[in-house]
Amino acid sequence: MNTPKKITTCFVSNWYNENINSENIVVVIDVLRATSVISTAFHYGVKEIIPVQSLEEAKNYQGKENYIVAAERNAMPIEGFDFGNSPFHYMNDKVKDKTLVLTTTNGTKALEIAKNQICITASFVNFDSVVKYLFLQEKDVVLLCSGWKGLFNLEDSIFAGKLAESLMQKGFQNSNDSTLAAIYLFKNADTDLFSFLNDSSHRERLRSLHMEEDTKFCLSPTFQSDIIPILKDGKLIKA
Amino acid sequence: MNTPKKITTCFVSNWYNENINSENIVVVIDVLRATSVISTAFHYGVKEIIPVQSLEEAKNYQGKENYIVAAERNAMPIEGFDFGNSPFHYMNDKVKDKTLVLTTTNGTKALEIAKNQICITASFVNFDSVVKYLFLQEKDVVLLCSGWKGLFNLEDSIFAGKLAESLMQKGFQNSNDSTLAAIYLFKNADTDLFSFLNDSSHRERLRSLHMEEDTKFCLSPTFQSDIIPILKDGKLIKA
Repeated sequence: MNTPKKITTCFVSNWYNENINSENIVVVIDVLRATSVISTAFHYGVKEIIPVQSLEEAKNYQGKENYIVAAERNAMPIEGFDFGNSPFHYMNDKVKDKTLVLTTTNGTKALEIAKNQICITASFVNFDSVVKYLFLQEKDVVLLCSGWKGLFNLEDSIFAGKLAESLMQKGFQNSNDSTLAAIYLFKNADTDLFSFLNDSSHRERLRSLHMEEDTKFCLSPTFQSDIIPILKDGKLIKA
Repeated sequence: MNTPKKITTCFVSNWYNENINSENIVVVIDVLRATSVISTAFHYGVKEIIPVQSLEEAKNYQGKENYIVAAERNAMPIEGFDFGNSPFHYMNDKVKDKTLVLTTTNGTKALEIAKNQICITASFVNFDSVVKYLFLQEKDVVLLCSGWKGLFNLEDSIFAGKLAESLMQKGFQNSNDSTLAAIYLFKNADTDLFSFLNDSSHRERLRSLHMEEDTKFCLSPTFQSDIIPILKDGKLIKA
């Protein structure tokens, strides 16, 4: 590729423009908390992750040997499922070599939207590795923020800005105003993301559910995973 | 209204959420250039403005007495029409007491989307009056950015941020992350909007068409209009 690789940012998954070149790599972002959970689960030994859209579909996997079935709706875990959408649920040996079936409010929807393209997931948990991976691919990049139920959210947009900034330092070129805006937002937030997001809608939602620890971990994780989850035939596996 | 009035920002007109309360006032924003043209035309004496969606619809008004028909697509005026989408076209006596029929790439589309609600138009040309007007109404407010062909743009979002900031100083309350993001973007841009927008996509588009003067005027107009254009039965009239 002789021309610079391009970055396009999409602030909400349902605003994803179908006309975007199908050769692009789509980076699905759902910082609070689906893509952070995905990175954490792989880091702790999960073999593969099957993102599903509905609770009914997830229930089909319950009781199968070596499967963990996790569900979240409106930031809450769902009764009857093994796990919810907290990264802390996955920080133990129980998940090793298991297949994780996961359904969440926004993140798994974004994965569904991108499923016919090359699609990886990104979070602060695997940030450094995502930058290195994208740098090595000869592809343009779409940063696909999950948003919250069809609406813009700050945390995914700021993460997209941080990722775009790092990629531009490696020679990528911005191709739309959303990327510029995301970078400005990231620069505003850079010194203390946790405080910056204090007024954000999802932060408020998680706080009201006493999930401050999840938020702290997702925004400032205690480890870096070198795994790039990539979607192949409906399953996330290690790239 | 005893609870604070709410501000919701929508970054692109087609992302407008139909579930938003129909009692809200929708503020249509297309800074470069449709809503700036609308304010300028009213300031120079236009009686009313009929926004139409198609060139064909606009052509139906051609040749009618006391009508001016203006059209723009992809930032370019259209051959055979009286006027284009430059505010300078309207700064003369010829427009006085006329009905202006206007079709543009993004702005008139946003007006169509909001036509069943209370809907006004805003630009830097009537900024101060819009703030005063909204302060006096007992209604929640939706800031509806036109965007560019279904995509986010910086200039409309920054304008929404400036408007939201002014309204919050008057006691309005933010109700979504888009408004927060818009305010951050505005604060980044505040000292010199023209320079800030240097890399933006539409600025680039207008520059390539030698429309720098239009951009300068729209971002930093030489006068303030005290007219609030409001949509009634498909026509913009003075509120």
